[in-house]
This record gives sequence, structure tokens and C-alpha cells, in this order.
Amino acid sequence: MHSLRFTAETSSTGVLERDFIVGEVTGVLWSPASGSDHSPLVLMGHGGGLHKKTPGLMARAHDSVTRWGVTVVAIDAPGHGDRPRTAEDDQARAEMRQAMESGELERFESISVRYSTSLAERAVPEWQATLDALQELPEIGAEAPIGYGGGMSLGTAIGIPLTAIEPRITAAIFGGGFFAHEALIEAARQITVPVQFLLPWDEEYVDRRSVLALFDAFAAKDKTLLANPGTHRNMRWVGVDSEFLVRHLGRAGTSPA
Amino acid sequence: MHSLRFTAETSSTGVLERDFIVGEVTGVLWSPASGSDHSPLVLMGHGGGLHKKTPGLMARAHDSVTRWGVTVVAIDAPGHGDRPRTAEDDQARAEMRQAMESGELERFESISVRYSTSLAERAVPEWQATLDALQELPEIGAEAPIGYGGGMSLGTAIGIPLTAIEPRITAAIFGGGFFAHEALIEAARQITVPVQFLLPWDEEYVDRRSVLALFDAFAAKDKTLLANPGTHRNMRWVGVDSEFLVRHLGRAGTSPA
Repeated sequence: MHSLRFTAETSSTGVLERDFIVGEVTGVLWSPASGSDHSPLVLMGHGGGLHKKTPGLMARAHDSVTRWGVTVVAIDAPGHGDRPRTAEDDQARAEMRQAMESGELERFESISVRYSTSLAERAVPEWQATLDALQELPEIGAEAPIGYGGGMSLGTAIGIPLTAIEPRITAAIFGGGFFAHEALIEAARQITVPVQFLLPWDEEYVDRRSVLALFDAFAAKDKTLLANPGTHRNMRWVGVDSEFLVRHLGRAGTSPA
Repeated sequence: MHSLRFTAETSSTGVLERDFIVGEVTGVLWSPASGSDHSPLVLMGHGGGLHKKTPGLMARAHDSVTRWGVTVVAIDAPGHGDRPRTAEDDQARAEMRQAMESGELERFESISVRYSTSLAERAVPEWQATLDALQELPEIGAEAPIGYGGGMSLGTAIGIPLTAIEPRITAAIFGGGFFAHEALIEAARQITVPVQFLLPWDEEYVDRRSVLALFDAFAAKDKTLLANPGTHRNMRWVGVDSEFLVRHLGRAGTSPA
């Protein structure tokens, strides 16, 4: 088992930000500067081609830490952020870009599904190793409730298979923006913890029916679909149940409702 | 123009309940017992075969009055509640029951659409006359912001054409449980005020695609679809944006955000 090594630390507006490494995985932990004794741990995923400190992800992380006192962790997916890119990464990205530019949506879909499935196969055990290492930290331990805090597209393509096999995750937020291929639907069928699912209604790359079939597949009795008008990169979320995770995980110093 | 005549008055747990008549229309007004000076007015519709004081509707009305200080009005649809049933009403209901019992879903749909369209054609001007009369009351006046507060099935089949042509309604909640026939979709295309749309995901009488097409049709830039697992008569709403109406209408004594 790899242990966790902190590599940098900064603090601003009440939020402590610590970069870390677990094995080859680069990650970041945001927690209340005032301390975080076994407070809920929220895992956040980034979108394809992005990284663990993408502005939108950081904004959500800071908001969660300051509003609810939870701890948030994000890691770079393989070939993303501070991690080395392999020839396979470069080739897949070049092919996706080319397919998109020439308007070959089916080819884009097939490369995207193949590449993301390969990424998810590597990322799921990396998330599990990261959780193992985080639970060794005294302020987290085995007591901190754990939820998957979302991320569209790649964050969901990784989060769904992770949540399907990881019993430590007890509530999850997923989102659209990714092709719901058969393996992903199969994984969704294994998920029984509460799910909140965010759908950009006018998503231009992914057939809406495919994403609705994914929501349909979750075995969770407590699942909510929320759709707002907007496209893949241009969303304005309205009416979201922002208390979803803390309701299921509890907030710092409290038990779940 | 018909004026409004109060016919009964009771009060409990801070909510004043006043039955009224406008012309032939029987209605009920719930308002804060402490007074309601130009506070927002929320119109609520009941489901098919039900009436203005259906328990679920009353619970939502009481909750809205006590939490937000708004005034809530409900009226009986033609042939419903305290209003006389015509031979047409009895025949349509008997035919719908028969079609349902014999499993003829297409026939059920066609009778239900025809009957509800006829009810909506009568109910829309009744709602408008009721609004005219309510605005003559000093505590409501022309200043009270007005929203449509929902109701599944018939409440939506009436609420959509009403909101499409009634400029006094500035935000609306609708729901599934009703066939989205072409006239209803056409009316939805006229609606530009903010919409919250509630969808029982496992609705057994209505094709989900039909309801999603209805959500798609709203011209509103600010529209939210929220789906939870559940059937026509067995729903548990989770994650609903309960502040939707007060955010757009304001609450008692405040301006909208």
C-alpha cells in the first residue's frame, strides 16, 4: 500500500489546500483551515482534458468546505494534469479532436468511449488507493463518511464504475456530457446509494436519450434527475439540491439526517 | 364581471381559510391569519376527479402560507368538487374508467385528452375571472405578484394554457401525469416565464417521452426539470427547489430576488 505524501500547502479564505502524491497519483485536498475531525469526505472528478485544479472544480470545492465544513479531494486522471501523458493519451486526444473538427460524431463517440473506458479502468483502483491512504490520516480515519461529489463527462465516466464497486461511497452526484455505453449502464445498475444526476438539457455531443437511459439504470431508490437548459460548456445550474451530499453524509460534527 | 363572495371562514395554525364563489366557480383562499398585504398569490390546480381541498393540495397550501407568507388560491375545475356534474362529465369519467379497467391505454389517452381539453377551455377563463375578482380585494390588489403553483395531471393540463395567455402569471410549476398532446405542446411554446417541471419517473399512464417533449417545448430560458422515481399516485419528491416561486415572486413584504 502506498502512503500519502503532502508536497505543498497553502491557505486562503479559511480553506487549507494541500497537494499530495499517492504512488504515481497526484491529488489535492481542501479542508477547513480550522480543522476537520472526521468530517465528511467528498471526492470530485474533473472533465476530460482538464485537471484536478480546474477553476469550476476549485470553486465547488471551496464552497463545499466553507459552507459545510467537509473535506474535498480531487486527483488527476491518468494522463491528465501533473501526470505524464503516454503515446496512447496523445493519440486518443488527437483522434478525438480530429473527429470533432471534421464533424464525425460517431467516430468521436467511439474513440471517446474507448479512451474513457481505458482511463476509468486505471482511475478506479487509483481512487481506491487514494481512499486507503486518506483514511490513514488521523483527521479523516475510517469514520469520515464518503460521497462522490460529481464532475461531468469524464468525472462521471470514472465515478460510476467507482461507486458501483466501492462500498465506502454512500451517496453520489453524477452528470451528463458522456456517452452512456453499455458497460457504464451495467455499472449504474449496481448502484443503490442515493444519486443526484445533473443533465445539461441541450448537450450537443451526447444523445439525450442515452443519458436518460443511464439515469433510468441506477438501482438507487433515492435518485433525482435535474435538467437545466444549457450546453456542454455553457451551463447555468438552477434549482439544484445543494444540500444533497450533506443530507446523506452529514456535515462536520453532525450525523447524517 | 363577477365579484367575489366569501361563503365560509375558518382558521387553524396561523392559516385563514376562506371559501368563496365567483360566478359559478367555487374556490378557496388560504392566507396568513396575521394578514397578507399584497403578498404573492399562488394558484394551485387539483388533479382529474379530485377537488380544491384535496389533502395533498391543502398540505402544500398550508406549507406555502406558513413558510413564505404567501396567499394560495384553488378553484374547483368544471364538473369537480362542489360544482355540478353534467352528463358529459359523467360519461367521460365512465368511459375513462372503463378503458382503464380493460387495459385500453390508447382509448384512455384519447378520451382523457378530449375531456381535459374541454375542461381546460372552460377552466382558463374561469381562472382569469377569479384573478380579476381577487385583485378587487384590498389585501391582494393589482400589486400582488402571481405564480402558478402546480398540480399534476389536470392541474397542468389547465395551468399550461392558462400561463400561456395570462400575462399576470410570472412563474409557474407544472408536472407530469398528463398526455402532452399537440395543443398542450403548442401552449408550452408560448411560455417564457420561469418554469419548474416535476416528473414522476415511473409514471404508468403516460409515455415518458411525451412528457419530456413537453418540457422541451417551453420557451422559458429559465426552466428546470426534476424527476424522482415514483408512479402517478405514489410519489416521494426529493431535492425539489422549494424556494422556486418565492425566488421569482418574492415573499410577503419583500421584492423578488
